[in-house]
Amino acid sequence: MDIFTILLYLDLLGTIVFAVSGLLAANGKRLDLFGAVFIAMVTAIGGGTLRDLILGEPVFWVLNNIYIYLVIATTFVVFIIARYRNFPVQLILYFDALGLAVFTVLGAHKALELGFSLPIAIITGVMTGAFGGVIRDVLVGEVPLIFRKEIYATASFFGGLIYVWLQSTNLPVEVPIIVSILFIFILRTWAVKLNKSLPVFDFHRH
Amino acid sequence: MDIFTILLYLDLLGTIVFAVSGLLAANGKRLDLFGAVFIAMVTAIGGGTLRDLILGEPVFWVLNNIYIYLVIATTFVVFIIARYRNFPVQLILYFDALGLAVFTVLGAHKALELGFSLPIAIITGVMTGAFGGVIRDVLVGEVPLIFRKEIYATASFFGGLIYVWLQSTNLPVEVPIIVSILFIFILRTWAVKLNKSLPVFDFHRH
Amino acid sequence: MDIFTILLYLDLLGTIVFAVSGLLAANGKRLDLFGAVFIAMVTAIGGGTLRDLILGEPVFWVLNNIYIYLVIATTFVVFIIARYRNFPVQLILYFDALGLAVFTVLGAHKALELGFSLPIAIITGVMTGAFGGVIRDVLVGEVPLIFRKEIYATASFFGGLIYVWLQSTNLPVEVPIIVSILFIFILRTWAVKLNKSLPVFDFHRH
Repeated sequence: MDIFTILLYLDLLGTIVFAVSGLLAANGKRLDLFGAVFIAMVTAIGGGTLRDLILGEPVFWVLNNIYIYLVIATTFVVFIIARYRNFPVQLILYFDALGLAVFTVLGAHKALELGFSLPIAIITGVMTGAFGGVIRDVLVGEVPLIFRKEIYATASFFGGLIYVWLQSTNLPVEVPIIVSILFIFILRTWAVKLNKSLPVFDFHRH
Repeated sequence: MDIFTILLYLDLLGTIVFAVSGLLAANGKRLDLFGAVFIAMVTAIGGGTLRDLILGEPVFWVLNNIYIYLVIATTFVVFIIARYRNFPVQLILYFDALGLAVFTVLGAHKALELGFSLPIAIITGVMTGAFGGVIRDVLVGEVPLIFRKEIYATASFFGGLIYVWLQSTNLPVEVPIIVSILFIFILRTWAVKLNKSLPVFDFHRH
Repeated sequence: MDIFTILLYLDLLGTIVFAVSGLLAANGKRLDLFGAVFIAMVTAIGGGTLRDLILGEPVFWVLNNIYIYLVIATTFVVFIIARYRNFPVQLILYFDALGLAVFTVLGAHKALELGFSLPIAIITGVMTGAFGGVIRDVLVGEVPLIFRKEIYATASFFGGLIYVWLQSTNLPVEVPIIVSILFIFILRTWAVKLNKSLPVFDFHRH
């Protein structure tokens, strides 16, 4: 399996898991099917859309309709399953973590491919990974996950840093991608599970 | 009246009704005149701005200042009327429904004109129609209309579908535009009036 | 000091003060360091990013990484200071007012430089000045400052108008910039201090 195939599959995987995380977040908001498609769409393609606009590239899903179809198909499937089975809402954390991991790395990768600098690649990675989830949370009226205290942007940032560093080495091209995705996903889910956080940003109280 | 004139008038109509819907939503938030201009502007030109950015086109209101002037003039007029008369807040639903209808069709039309595919045209239509209202609701701290249970994105989606299908036939160019606008407006207002909804998206409870 | 140097310093100043305003707004939300970087970044570069996208220009911070570094450095410094000292939260109003003033004028200036019309320059100015703060407030779940009753968008609007008018005169280039920045900052802080507002937009109650 060559690197382009891996990247395509990861992109489709990220699209599906973020679509599902959007649907889980919308649960209980009494959306109808196309309302659900809307929130799934915004969550799944929001980060990449922002990335492409900022980098001055054509928007990926306008060039290739598969992302649109995939979000719609995912919504239909989840919609049907949801009639019969109970999804634990905690699943959103895992789907969101996987989306964050995959899209951070793909965002950084795309910026580097286009010849942008390393810091821009890291920032683009964090924005691609975190922005869809931020829009999702704002739209459904939740405090964005990124603002809860467990490691979130931090995982994305260091994952992007690791990717940018590893891909400048002589390692086979799959390695930086896989290592940095695993790093983000494991760090984030571990932090949620153990309720770990970094020192928080809070002003001194006398 | 040729098709270009019709499209221009519809665009101006959509701008006015969405501006009014923004002002109605801001009612009670104690905005001053230019705060009101800001929310009216974002609501009225937000959807089309997103459409143009995503399609890689110059932003419409930067090319043609009439939209800006129209929003400002609408705000002044509503501001003055509001001193003397009581607007029933329910009006926002009709203004929003008309804006949704007009901008969905104009969004889909512009994408097709520029040679984009049919699915992209439908998605662009829904985004153009729904996005201004979503920003409006998020900014004033309301649950977006699109997330309340009556048919909303669904009306926009099927209206876009009808437009894309009808315009591929041999009907006179006005027909697809008028039919799909009426379809969206009537479906949406009927749903609000009768409190109709599609089956909602909610997970199975054991 | 020539005009380009002045503009660059103002841009850096606006970036710092908006970053600080983002950090002050995030206070108490228990963000970790990189969550704080994220909110500071969005606040400081959001307005200019929107401006550049709308004007069809390359995004400023992608061209020049100094803005990114500056936001990160500001966050680190504030993060450390915050451990030892208590910032009065009211400071956010002053930082926000200064950011509003500087970015309104820079936004209008950039649009004029690129040959856009006067009304577009004023609108671009208001959007550049107000948008970062609006995103900040939406993300942290506050009612946007722009929607509280003291003069806000109004200060930005008239400051932009004054700038656009003065720069068409024969005054030395620094004068319009300095006068309009001072105008916005003083009007806004005076309004907050004295709790001044314009007549608010509210429908007549019978």
